[in-house]
Amino acid sequence: MNKNFEQLMKYIEKEMAFQAALTLFEWDAETLAPEDSMAYTSKTIGILSNEYFINLINDDVKKLIHKLSEEKEQTGLDFNQKAIVKDIKKSIEQLEFIPPEEYRAYSELTAKASGIWSKAKQKKCFADFLPALDEIISYQKKFAGYRAKKGIKPYDILLNDFEEGFNMEKLDEFFGKIKEAVIPLLKEVTKRRDSIDKTYNHRHYDIEKQKEFCRYISGYVGFDFNRGVIAESAHPFTTNLHNHDVRITNHFHEDNLESAIFSIIHESGHGIYEMHIDDAITQTPVGTGTSMGMHESQSRFFENVIGRSEAFWKPLFPRLKETFPEQLNDVSLEHFIKGINKATPGLIRTEADELSYPLHVIIRYEIEKMIFAGKIKTKDLPEVWNKKYKEYMGIEPMDDSNGVLQDIHWAGGSFGYFPSYAIGSAIAAQIYYHMCSVMPIEKYLTEGNLTPIREYLNNHIHKYGKTKNTNEILKDMMDEELNADYYVRYLEEKYNKLYELNP
Amino acid sequence: MNKNFEQLMKYIEKEMAFQAALTLFEWDAETLAPEDSMAYTSKTIGILSNEYFINLINDDVKKLIHKLSEEKEQTGLDFNQKAIVKDIKKSIEQLEFIPPEEYRAYSELTAKASGIWSKAKQKKCFADFLPALDEIISYQKKFAGYRAKKGIKPYDILLNDFEEGFNMEKLDEFFGKIKEAVIPLLKEVTKRRDSIDKTYNHRHYDIEKQKEFCRYISGYVGFDFNRGVIAESAHPFTTNLHNHDVRITNHFHEDNLESAIFSIIHESGHGIYEMHIDDAITQTPVGTGTSMGMHESQSRFFENVIGRSEAFWKPLFPRLKETFPEQLNDVSLEHFIKGINKATPGLIRTEADELSYPLHVIIRYEIEKMIFAGKIKTKDLPEVWNKKYKEYMGIEPMDDSNGVLQDIHWAGGSFGYFPSYAIGSAIAAQIYYHMCSVMPIEKYLTEGNLTPIREYLNNHIHKYGKTKNTNEILKDMMDEELNADYYVRYLEEKYNKLYELNP
Repeated sequence: MNKNFEQLMKYIEKEMAFQAALTLFEWDAETLAPEDSMAYTSKTIGILSNEYFINLINDDVKKLIHKLSEEKEQTGLDFNQKAIVKDIKKSIEQLEFIPPEEYRAYSELTAKASGIWSKAKQKKCFADFLPALDEIISYQKKFAGYRAKKGIKPYDILLNDFEEGFNMEKLDEFFGKIKEAVIPLLKEVTKRRDSIDKTYNHRHYDIEKQKEFCRYISGYVGFDFNRGVIAESAHPFTTNLHNHDVRITNHFHEDNLESAIFSIIHESGHGIYEMHIDDAITQTPVGTGTSMGMHESQSRFFENVIGRSEAFWKPLFPRLKETFPEQLNDVSLEHFIKGINKATPGLIRTEADELSYPLHVIIRYEIEKMIFAGKIKTKDLPEVWNKKYKEYMGIEPMDDSNGVLQDIHWAGGSFGYFPSYAIGSAIAAQIYYHMCSVMPIEKYLTEGNLTPIREYLNNHIHKYGKTKNTNEILKDMMDEELNADYYVRYLEEKYNKLYELNP
Repeated sequence: MNKNFEQLMKYIEKEMAFQAALTLFEWDAETLAPEDSMAYTSKTIGILSNEYFINLINDDVKKLIHKLSEEKEQTGLDFNQKAIVKDIKKSIEQLEFIPPEEYRAYSELTAKASGIWSKAKQKKCFADFLPALDEIISYQKKFAGYRAKKGIKPYDILLNDFEEGFNMEKLDEFFGKIKEAVIPLLKEVTKRRDSIDKTYNHRHYDIEKQKEFCRYISGYVGFDFNRGVIAESAHPFTTNLHNHDVRITNHFHEDNLESAIFSIIHESGHGIYEMHIDDAITQTPVGTGTSMGMHESQSRFFENVIGRSEAFWKPLFPRLKETFPEQLNDVSLEHFIKGINKATPGLIRTEADELSYPLHVIIRYEIEKMIFAGKIKTKDLPEVWNKKYKEYMGIEPMDDSNGVLQDIHWAGGSFGYFPSYAIGSAIAAQIYYHMCSVMPIEKYLTEGNLTPIREYLNNHIHKYGKTKNTNEILKDMMDEELNADYYVRYLEEKYNKLYELNP
C-alpha cells in the first residue's frame, strides 16, 4: 500500500468519525432533542466542529495531500483512493484560509440559528431571525472572500461547492430556459385550474393509517428497514451515518393525504441512493451522494417522474383505497393521477407541484445573487420576496412564515444550495428519457416490479458515491452532460397532456 | 484565574464533547438505530473513544493534574474547580495504564456486544453470548490488573469505581445484614401470597392510554419536558448530555399496567437528579450524579418509597381509574396499594418487588465475585445462576433469557455495577426516615404537592453533582453515613404491615 495514503487514512478515519458525530447531533436536534437543550449542546457541536476542522487543516495533512496530488506519487492508489485524495484536497481548499476560531464560532452560530429561525417562523416574524441571518451572511461572505481567487465572485464559489463546475453564468442560462418555458405554461394551466378537482385530498385522513401506508410505500420503492429508519420532523429530510445507517423523516397532516405520501417517496429516493453507495467507500469522504443536485435527481425521480405516473399507481392504488375506503370511495385511478399532478401556484416550495416548483427555486437563486452582490439589504428581504412571488406566480405571501421564513437553509448557512433542487429535477427528467430507451419502465411499474429500475440507478449512479461528479456520471451513463432541454420537454409534455393544451 | 486550571479546561471541554457524542451514539443505538448499522457505527465509536482516551491520557494533562493536585498550586480554585481536578485525577488513574489500542478495541467490542447479547437473549441461548462475554471479562481483568496496587483485589477496584470507598469487605457486611433479614421475611410473605389479589394488573390496557398516563405522571413527579424527552426502548433507562438535555425511556405491555407506570416514575427520578445539577458544573466532569448508588437512590425514592405509598396515589388514583374505567372498575385505592406492593419471588430483576429485589442483586454480586476470583468458568454461569435463584428465592429460570441473559450490563462491561442498585435502595430508605423528621412528606403527597420534597432533594443532593461523594452528601444532609439498618427497618415495617405479620 502507498505509505503516504496509509498515513492520510488515519486522519480521514478520524474526520469521518467527527462528521458522523456531527450528523447524529443534527439528526437528533431535528427529530427529538428537548427544546431548551440547544443553548448547551451547541457548545459540544462547536468543539466537535473545531476538531473536525483542525484534524483536516494542518500541515501534516496538507503535506500528504500535496504529495499525493502528484501523479508520480500515486503509485498503488486505486480509483477510489485517488478520488479520496481529490476530495480531501477540495475540502482543504474550502477551509484552509478560515481561522479555526472563526470556524468554531460559525458552527456554534448555525447550531443555534435553526432554533431561532424555527421560533421566528412560528411567530411569523422575520425581524426575530434577522440578526442571526445577518451574522451568518457576514460569515459566508468573509469565508468566500478568504477563498476568492482573482476574478471569481463569492457566490460562484458557493455554487461550485454544491455542484462542481457550476457558476452564475451557467445557471443564468439554465434558469433562463426554464423561466421562458414555465412562466407562460403555468399561466395557461392556472386558467384551467378548475378542470381538475382535488377536494378529495383534503378529507380527513387518520394519521396512524397514513403512517402505515407511508411505511409500506417506502419499502415498496426499495428503502431497506434493516439499514434505515423513519422518524418524524417538522420538515422531512434524509441523513446518513454510512451506507448501513440511513435515516429519513416524514410529517403528517390529517387534512392532506398527498403531503406525507410524496414526502416519503421523495426521502426514500434520497435514502436508496445512500444505501447503495459501495461498501468499499462508505465511511470515507467519497462515500456519499456526489452532489446535492444528483441527490435531488434521485429523490425527484422516485417522487415525481415515476411516483406521480399512472403506471406506478396501477398496482398501488387499490391498497390506498383499502386503507381509506370512505375518503376515496368516489375517486378513480384516473381522477387520482390528475389530482396528484394538478398544478396550482402556491406559496410553499416543499408543497409545490412540479410545474411551479422551479419558480420557487429561481426566486431564491435570484435573491441570493442579490445578497452576495450587495444589491439588497437583508431587512428588505420579505418585501423583495413577496414582489417576486407576485411577479412570477401571481400570488403573495400573507406573512413571513409563508414567505421568506419558510425554509431552514439560510439558518444553516446553506447559500448556493437552492439551485440544486432545480438541477435535480432536470437530471431526473434527463435520466428518465435515457432509461426509457434502455428498458420498459412503464411495464415494470405496472407490474409493481421496481427492482430493475432501482438496480439500473444503483449500478450507474449510486454505487459510485462521490468518486465521479455529476457530469461524469451522466456522461458515462448516456454520453451527454446535463442539458436543461430534457426538463423543459418533460414539463411541457406532461402538462400539455394533463390540461389538454395545444402547444 | 489559575493558569494551569485554565489550560486544563481546554482538555476538559474537549473531553466532555467526546463524552457527549459517545452518549448520544449509545442513546441512539438503544432507541432507534437500524439493526444492521452497528457493525459500521462501532468503528466510529471506537475512534471517538480513542480520542476521548488520548485527550485525557497524555503528558500535558498528567503534568497539569500533578501540579494542580498540590495544595500550594490551587490558588484561585473554587470548590467546584477543586472537585474537577480530583475527578480528573481519578479518571486518569483508571485509564493511564491501559494501552490506547486496547482501550479502542475494548470500546468497539462493547459497542458490538450489546447487539450480540440482545440477539442471544431473543434466542434464549447463552452460548451465543459466551465468546463476547469471555472477551469482555478478560479485558476487565486485564484492565483491573494494570491498576492493581499491592494487596488490592481486581473486583475491589471495580466496586470502588462505581461507589467511592466501597469494597468487598464492606459490601459483604452490607449484604449480610440484608440477606439475614430478607430471606426469612420473603419466605413468610410467600406463604401468604394469596392474601393479595393482583389479577386486575393483567387485564388489557391500551398502550396509547398507558403512554398518555405515563407522560402525565412523569411531569407530575417533576420531569421537565423543556429539558427532557421520553422515548421507547426494550429496557427503560436514563441518559443525559447535560442538565438541559435529559432523556428517559419506557416500555409498554398490553397485559401489565404497573410495568410502564413504575418504570417511568423510576426513570423520572433519575432524570430529575440530572436536571437539577447546578448550571455552574454541567458539561464538566463533575456535572452528573455522584455515583450509581446515589442515582438509584433517587429513582427508587420516587418509584418505591413515595411512588408505592397510599398518600402518593390518593390524588392520582382517580385519574388512573378515569383512564381505565372498565379495567379498574372493581379496584379500590386500598386494593391497588396492596397490589403494587405485593411481593412475589420472580425471575426478572427489573420487574421485582421491593422485598425480593435485593436478592436479585446479591446473586449477581456473588457471581461477579466468583468470576473475578477465578472460582467459576463462564460456561457454567447459567447453572450457578439457576442454583442461586432456587436457593434464595425458591424458583428457577426456565431458560437463559429469564436467567443469566436478562441484564445488558455485562455486555457493556459493567462489572461491579449491580451492588449500586441495592446501595441505592438502602440510601432511599435512609433519606426517607431523615426527611420524615424535617417535613410532613405524607401531607405533601396527599395534597399532590411534590415541590417541597423535590426541592429538598435538589438542594441537598442533586445540585452538587459529583462535587461531593455519596457519604459526604449523606453526612452533610443528616450527619450520618450509609447505614443498612434503615433499609432493613424499612422493608420489615412495610411488609409486616402489608401482610399483617407479627415479627
